[in-house]
Amino acid sequence: MIAEPCKPGTTIGIIGGGQLGRMMCLAAAELGFRTIVLAPDEDAPAAQVCNQYMRATYEDIDALNTLAGAADIITYEFENISAAALESISSQLFPPLNALRVSQDRLHEKTFMRENGLPVTDFIELTDRDALAQGLAAFGGSGIVKTRQFGYDGKGQWRINAETDWVADSADMLAQPAILERIIPFTRELSIIIARGHDGQSVCYQPIENQHENHILRRSILPATIDPERSNAAKHIGETLVNHLDYVGVLAVELFDTADGLIINEIAPRVHNSGHVTADACAVGQFEQHIRAICGWPLGDPQAHSQGEMTNILGHEIDNWAGFAADANTRLHLYGKPVAREGRKMGHITRLTPF
Amino acid sequence: MIAEPCKPGTTIGIIGGGQLGRMMCLAAAELGFRTIVLAPDEDAPAAQVCNQYMRATYEDIDALNTLAGAADIITYEFENISAAALESISSQLFPPLNALRVSQDRLHEKTFMRENGLPVTDFIELTDRDALAQGLAAFGGSGIVKTRQFGYDGKGQWRINAETDWVADSADMLAQPAILERIIPFTRELSIIIARGHDGQSVCYQPIENQHENHILRRSILPATIDPERSNAAKHIGETLVNHLDYVGVLAVELFDTADGLIINEIAPRVHNSGHVTADACAVGQFEQHIRAICGWPLGDPQAHSQGEMTNILGHEIDNWAGFAADANTRLHLYGKPVAREGRKMGHITRLTPF
Repeated sequence: MIAEPCKPGTTIGIIGGGQLGRMMCLAAAELGFRTIVLAPDEDAPAAQVCNQYMRATYEDIDALNTLAGAADIITYEFENISAAALESISSQLFPPLNALRVSQDRLHEKTFMRENGLPVTDFIELTDRDALAQGLAAFGGSGIVKTRQFGYDGKGQWRINAETDWVADSADMLAQPAILERIIPFTRELSIIIARGHDGQSVCYQPIENQHENHILRRSILPATIDPERSNAAKHIGETLVNHLDYVGVLAVELFDTADGLIINEIAPRVHNSGHVTADACAVGQFEQHIRAICGWPLGDPQAHSQGEMTNILGHEIDNWAGFAADANTRLHLYGKPVAREGRKMGHITRLTPF
Repeated sequence: MIAEPCKPGTTIGIIGGGQLGRMMCLAAAELGFRTIVLAPDEDAPAAQVCNQYMRATYEDIDALNTLAGAADIITYEFENISAAALESISSQLFPPLNALRVSQDRLHEKTFMRENGLPVTDFIELTDRDALAQGLAAFGGSGIVKTRQFGYDGKGQWRINAETDWVADSADMLAQPAILERIIPFTRELSIIIARGHDGQSVCYQPIENQHENHILRRSILPATIDPERSNAAKHIGETLVNHLDYVGVLAVELFDTADGLIINEIAPRVHNSGHVTADACAVGQFEQHIRAICGWPLGDPQAHSQGEMTNILGHEIDNWAGFAADANTRLHLYGKPVAREGRKMGHITRLTPF
């Protein structure tokens, strides 16, 4: 909780220098805030647009304390930061450290959800190879092994079915703490982008439909084409989560839409790739909404003015920037990354269609 | 003319550190460009969001040459810069120096328009007090004295009618080179925001309707409520101007809508306060459009996705930031200016209404 809203001109510290940090900086600037970015890279996307750049590792307690001295509010662009390193600055940190902790570990995250009556896939903790064998047996011979920590874009995941010689790979799978999840057949992937303020009020965008390719988000569509009942159920899950987490800021919730209803895949305590579409299709998008929420401002109206379809620009697809720029009714966002590695998120486009 | 389009990652130099420079920096960043801002102030709005800030006066030739060495393309946020100082960097400067020169001097500007068959108010050059007396007689006893250079927001202007004791003030009026303009009764003020690329292609937003208070723009509405014929006439004026000026970048044209047709009030060779509404109501707004034009990119579609109404936030009106932020369907932009002087442009809001 902050005592009062942050006035324009206040300095916001942002941990992480990638495209999410960059777009948070740009949104903060539109509201008259100043930004300091802390990241380890020599030339980070966010470093190009902030007031001040601090080059330091995320575990550098001195640097984090310096950041806390220079900034009034601190936020982060990714959840794989050491929570221990953030302890000493936690009074200024939003989303709150407790929410970060829950989301950093799949076992804690899923346990938290199950305990709060939220729909999650069946899962078990993998203490050893026997546990994996028992879990697979319980889930009908198939499942997905996921490392408890530090996974993203499909990294740290192994899919197992009846044909998989999992025993040969089990040393790899179990090298880090991991869980086994039941494979859920779903008709579509959805996400919820919800913001909650210091006062406990929350606003939720309409559900977004996501399409992945090679475990990387390719396309997000706002609003998802689902019936109003399921849409309300998705929003209700988001509201339940932010309230139970006593959350402040934007939370992203990935959901599977299944024959049996919605199931939570995972949460991210931050702005999210699938929410980029809101920044172009709504008056107040996820980046500004996050800044408003953590600074104690009135939350923005999540209503979309246009239907939006966001497509990620990956790797060397960016070489076609002129083609993307020539698309009518399309907003182009490039992240200022000098090197286009395969699968790297280089930018995105949003095609807008008025309703 | 540039040989080929500037690739993402190219550095753009921006002369001027105010809100227009700031919003150009933000738009350039969205396209993956880097920015260097040159301005004399210690803490300029644009300095907060650029890659690099060069603190120098606009007449500092060494600093301008350093800027030209570090940036591939150079642009500016205001027309009151010494054209002589820009000579040595003119090959990188867009809009081109010739267009800047025309717009810097009301006498040249109006003469240029008259010579090109464009509708302007009657005007005469004020060489001395006799010329002023003769001009007033010719214009029916009234008129507006305007300094040829460096006027903005009503500064450097004197309105004279039958009751004005103009002789007493004439020394002030004629202290700098000036012209006298006929007073034109008009029904509304309009502006045209048009962009032209290096290839000679241009795109024009729909005409915008402007409301002034105390000579300062208060409100701009896109699109203006005028009939299609007049709308086309306004766009045609814009197209004629950019073609005759061999222009590159965004040009703003202020127009009076009168019983006898449209009359040009003045032009600005830059992004313009009345064009801010395009940044929120269109997929590609004036700031991005300007960056695209000067960098040789495909120009963006100027079609609006929503009706937009932009209102300037002046002076201490910014103290109501929380109220502005609470308005639904409204985008808020604050400029990062630490001190709110009376009449100073501190930010703006745009209310969006889907068509």
